[in-house]
Amino acid sequence: MEFDLRIKELLSMVKEEQPLIHHITNYVTVNDCANIVLALGGSPVMADELLEVSDMVTIASALVLNMGTLNQRTIKSMITAGKKANQLNIPVIFDPVGVGATPLRTKTADQIIKEVELAVIRGNMSEIKILSGINTEIKGVDATESTEGGSEIAKALAKRLNCTIAITGATDLVSNGLRTFYLQNGHQHLASVTGTGCMTTSLIGTYNAITKDSLMAAITGIITMGIAGEIAFQSLGSSAGLGTFRMRLFDSVSQLTADQLVKEAKINEE
Amino acid sequence: MEFDLRIKELLSMVKEEQPLIHHITNYVTVNDCANIVLALGGSPVMADELLEVSDMVTIASALVLNMGTLNQRTIKSMITAGKKANQLNIPVIFDPVGVGATPLRTKTADQIIKEVELAVIRGNMSEIKILSGINTEIKGVDATESTEGGSEIAKALAKRLNCTIAITGATDLVSNGLRTFYLQNGHQHLASVTGTGCMTTSLIGTYNAITKDSLMAAITGIITMGIAGEIAFQSLGSSAGLGTFRMRLFDSVSQLTADQLVKEAKINEE
Amino acid sequence: MEFDLRIKELLSMVKEEQPLIHHITNYVTVNDCANIVLALGGSPVMADELLEVSDMVTIASALVLNMGTLNQRTIKSMITAGKKANQLNIPVIFDPVGVGATPLRTKTADQIIKEVELAVIRGNMSEIKILSGINTEIKGVDATESTEGGSEIAKALAKRLNCTIAITGATDLVSNGLRTFYLQNGHQHLASVTGTGCMTTSLIGTYNAITKDSLMAAITGIITMGIAGEIAFQSLGSSAGLGTFRMRLFDSVSQLTADQLVKEAKINEE
Repeated sequence: MEFDLRIKELLSMVKEEQPLIHHITNYVTVNDCANIVLALGGSPVMADELLEVSDMVTIASALVLNMGTLNQRTIKSMITAGKKANQLNIPVIFDPVGVGATPLRTKTADQIIKEVELAVIRGNMSEIKILSGINTEIKGVDATESTEGGSEIAKALAKRLNCTIAITGATDLVSNGLRTFYLQNGHQHLASVTGTGCMTTSLIGTYNAITKDSLMAAITGIITMGIAGEIAFQSLGSSAGLGTFRMRLFDSVSQLTADQLVKEAKINEE
Repeated sequence: MEFDLRIKELLSMVKEEQPLIHHITNYVTVNDCANIVLALGGSPVMADELLEVSDMVTIASALVLNMGTLNQRTIKSMITAGKKANQLNIPVIFDPVGVGATPLRTKTADQIIKEVELAVIRGNMSEIKILSGINTEIKGVDATESTEGGSEIAKALAKRLNCTIAITGATDLVSNGLRTFYLQNGHQHLASVTGTGCMTTSLIGTYNAITKDSLMAAITGIITMGIAGEIAFQSLGSSAGLGTFRMRLFDSVSQLTADQLVKEAKINEE
Repeated sequence: MEFDLRIKELLSMVKEEQPLIHHITNYVTVNDCANIVLALGGSPVMADELLEVSDMVTIASALVLNMGTLNQRTIKSMITAGKKANQLNIPVIFDPVGVGATPLRTKTADQIIKEVELAVIRGNMSEIKILSGINTEIKGVDATESTEGGSEIAKALAKRLNCTIAITGATDLVSNGLRTFYLQNGHQHLASVTGTGCMTTSLIGTYNAITKDSLMAAITGIITMGIAGEIAFQSLGSSAGLGTFRMRLFDSVSQLTADQLVKEAKINEE
């Protein structure tokens, strides 16, 4: 109940305010991130040059840092933009893609966490474990581990970093350290299309741009992608595969109504 | 009448000659730019390394410079390739994405304009205003401002730079300083898909590769995208959203006939 | 007969083992490469930073090097990752995009061939000719030349480099120097969508990740894309163009069964 009203409000506010979402993100899924922000009603801008990231974030309403294809140049840009966003009270949403897969990724994520105050971190179970200092097996950048047992990890990390932690998987889990929620929307096809994690992070950023409530932004971003996945799957005929499913994700987000979002959301507090 | 024949000719010449279009462009919409050039019948090549851009542009028939995700490395490549293109009389088409959003973008656009002779500049109203030295509010990289009142601005800039200026928006405007045209094709969905501006620039480049008449190339490139948007929208069922619309843009451009282009074009001279 | 069993086996092994395929590839078609690997059942990871490529390739089962948008930074990363893969006996698949179009590309391809032991090289006829030291006309990065007469060239290069050479075109040709095969699947639309060559290379890499038989991996990768192209084309209604065709490629690969692959394959030994 409490949520229903705010979810409705968030979606309509995005469409009304069209917030500018500055991304420093990877080149694999950047087009998808731009299109999903547009489909929701926001305005994406991608800019990673050190000489301009401070200026760009200054005119933005949220900053998304995604280290999917990090390099020495863009790591500096991420830190610089993140610090500037902090000065300006612009929320920073962090996607630690592949942290744990290489020492560079782990070191970079640690540096970002140390030097930038984050509003939300969204990752899969393995990534959040690594950020929490727990040893786990990482295989590339894709989610394989279940979120089971993630609650204590999310709560502890949320408290330590004073931010919202979102762990996405078959069941999603969001916690700000005080309140923890389980989200059950989605479809397994989402794991077979590149960028659905990155796009979820971008959606969270878009919602966080218009509310100070990062917990709510994370929940709404995740269920938006989850419900879009469900609708996309339902719309597939028997002859359609992952290409059609992927296209329908954008259809679904662009056509999603606040009523639909509220009606289909599967949110349970711990 | 005058136009009908040349528009027909341009489209068939692209398909016959398959001109090579060298792009130094952003990583957000680069795949879309490549596919739209292919859909029209051209041959795209993307290459931004300073050590090869002069060689690459030498075998190309047009050069597209798009500063959507500019960085210090690619700025140098853009200038170098642009100068080489000038030496070889290869038309250079410039898309000043986000000029005015940051000082770096404004400085870079100014540098390109100063050091490279451009055949066509295509931007939205705010971007063209900035290039003209007019103060305006910039919000990221997306078009929001109407093109109303753009005629005098376009004419003055076209005369100053001795090139064709194309301002795209709800109504598009193209001027070479001597003649000015209003184009009325398109659909509002085009503003909700990333890359439609960049793709329009790439289409202009593809047409400009086979004619010295940059004014004509700009007009034909813009109406090609506009009509593709109209056809794409018409083909949507009630259940389809932005994902399907985006895919249909490529369908439409790949299937567009010269007759259709001439029949649907809404071109009015000032 | 010999092939039927192994093709079946390869496809099911990919789906079972979900091998991690490390790509250092271009930013034009990188999203397509990631999605096609996922559609087949593999797990893609894209990472090009010199400081992490050795670590990333260490956890991968194959390495794909694609020089489509090479730059000084990523050339170093390709060489370093390739050498590390060699130490670990991880197969390296090389796509020499646009070799011959610029001296930098030719020099880089030569360096990669010299410093890295390759399992498979996949290119179009012009590219393979250039690698073989034969003068030919290069126009950008797209295939135009017929593979006719390619057999001797492929065999000689395969023997010289002790690897499998795959030349794709209207008819594809694969040789390891001892055995040579002609493959006849595909559709001409594949040449009008960017990234179909790159995706074929990624499919070869995915198969090669689970078999030491690079010849078999190359054949299976190429017919997978060819048959996907045939199915995608057959599924098109009269109103559909290149956008729909492109989407259906991903549908087709994601739905392809081992039986279908075996039944539709057109493979002839020389």
